[in-house]
Amino acid sequence: MGRARGAGKLAIIAGRDALPRRIAEAERAAGRPYLVVSFEGLTQPWMADHPHEEHRFEKAGRLFAALRRAGVEAVVFAGAMDRPRLEPWRFDIGAMRIAPRVLALLRRGDDGLLSGLGAILEAEGFRLVAAQDCLPDATEGAGWPTVARLGETARADARRASAILAALGPLDVAQAAVVAEGICLGIEAIEGTDALLARIAELPEAKRGARPSGVLVKRPKPGQDRRVDLPAIGPRTVEGAARAGLLGIAVEARGAILLDRDATVAAADRAGLAIWSADPSDLGP
Amino acid sequence: MGRARGAGKLAIIAGRDALPRRIAEAERAAGRPYLVVSFEGLTQPWMADHPHEEHRFEKAGRLFAALRRAGVEAVVFAGAMDRPRLEPWRFDIGAMRIAPRVLALLRRGDDGLLSGLGAILEAEGFRLVAAQDCLPDATEGAGWPTVARLGETARADARRASAILAALGPLDVAQAAVVAEGICLGIEAIEGTDALLARIAELPEAKRGARPSGVLVKRPKPGQDRRVDLPAIGPRTVEGAARAGLLGIAVEARGAILLDRDATVAAADRAGLAIWSADPSDLGP
Repeated sequence: MGRARGAGKLAIIAGRDALPRRIAEAERAAGRPYLVVSFEGLTQPWMADHPHEEHRFEKAGRLFAALRRAGVEAVVFAGAMDRPRLEPWRFDIGAMRIAPRVLALLRRGDDGLLSGLGAILEAEGFRLVAAQDCLPDATEGAGWPTVARLGETARADARRASAILAALGPLDVAQAAVVAEGICLGIEAIEGTDALLARIAELPEAKRGARPSGVLVKRPKPGQDRRVDLPAIGPRTVEGAARAGLLGIAVEARGAILLDRDATVAAADRAGLAIWSADPSDLGP
Repeated sequence: MGRARGAGKLAIIAGRDALPRRIAEAERAAGRPYLVVSFEGLTQPWMADHPHEEHRFEKAGRLFAALRRAGVEAVVFAGAMDRPRLEPWRFDIGAMRIAPRVLALLRRGDDGLLSGLGAILEAEGFRLVAAQDCLPDATEGAGWPTVARLGETARADARRASAILAALGPLDVAQAAVVAEGICLGIEAIEGTDALLARIAELPEAKRGARPSGVLVKRPKPGQDRRVDLPAIGPRTVEGAARAGLLGIAVEARGAILLDRDATVAAADRAGLAIWSADPSDLGP
């Protein structure tokens, strides 16, 4: 981890969820230099306790200059980020320069946007670091952290959900899908996993089938840059899965961020749900 | 159409939506012999005005015998049908005989179920007829039935949604997807198109992007048996698309059923939405 994180100052480009805060706290605890960067609309109260700057996408030139002035050497994207609402007339020179690339990125999927922004930052001379390399315990090795395990039917459901995600990967869509007894109950597009699980909880019984059944699968898109936008689960995901009447959650070992590992596993154990941190070969192609 | 429909008695296996009723009314108007068949739980008041029998999946033997006794020669599946909730202890001999095949089908996708049931009926000696061959005006040729048309950005969105559906087709998932300015806003799994559009209408603005934008695409799965389960749109679909802030709906020419063609087009014109009945090559692979 030390090598991936490096010794220079780290800029934490902060999206939603608990991840950017956890990285900031880990940096502070380790006594390493860092700077939290949020874009307008994504600034949150906890950032006031850390070295923090707010920027605008439209002022990318100012952002690059500020990062250099602050001595930033590496950059990490942490937490989900929606497409920014750009006001192009506010573009500064730096933003103008990268505008063609950014505007093209905005027409691609979510992951295309983030990995593209990563590429732009790298072209500006910053090193792109993965969130999971900043937090030692953010991902889980292969195994069953929970008391409950999935039976053969549920594992087959996980493989089918995984195949659905693999088919969509080349189109840069979907990091999550739910399959129950062979039937696909839902595929996540832009709405997010919480919304996906909430709508499955409300499916009429004739469509939903027997409860409990089914597995939520979250895994990276095949070939995606794993330094940005790894799928994440947390206690809220577990609670949503329980309300949706699922048997468990499957992630790819080392391929998903557990937002709060112990709380997530404890919530699953309380609800009797399984978490399968599966070897990729166990999930199929 | 006459040739596809044939002269013998037609059994209309009636699911939800207006389609089975429209076929029954067309048969009656043409003076052709027919029989409406509903499964327990799907029987509706309008069926009382037609020759009608209610059956149970579990009594498939009785169903086959009843169809033969009634002189049924051909069968059409009309309207969406959820997975039946089977009570296997009620299986009769005929159902026992086909049980292994039916139980295997229930573990496949929606389309796998219906085309599999079609294959079973064919094996029993009945001819499988497509709903669109029973209703002359149920599908639309290539063109723009609406006043509004889609611009180049929206057509690109339609092609991207279509590519998403094509990728999922081999997995027997999804006949509908929505893309707006390059971003996939939703993919339909088991919930149905109305639910898909309702949740897009409620997406937060940061995820939704500018309104109006985006296109709903419904098209058959590549290689699916087009005699069963062709995608359908109707006035309700148009109203849902309008509430979701879309620019229009794209279907494959002759590849979607318009549940009430004139009312659907009128609703789209009122809302300023485009309906694109696209040549398959215009939607991409």
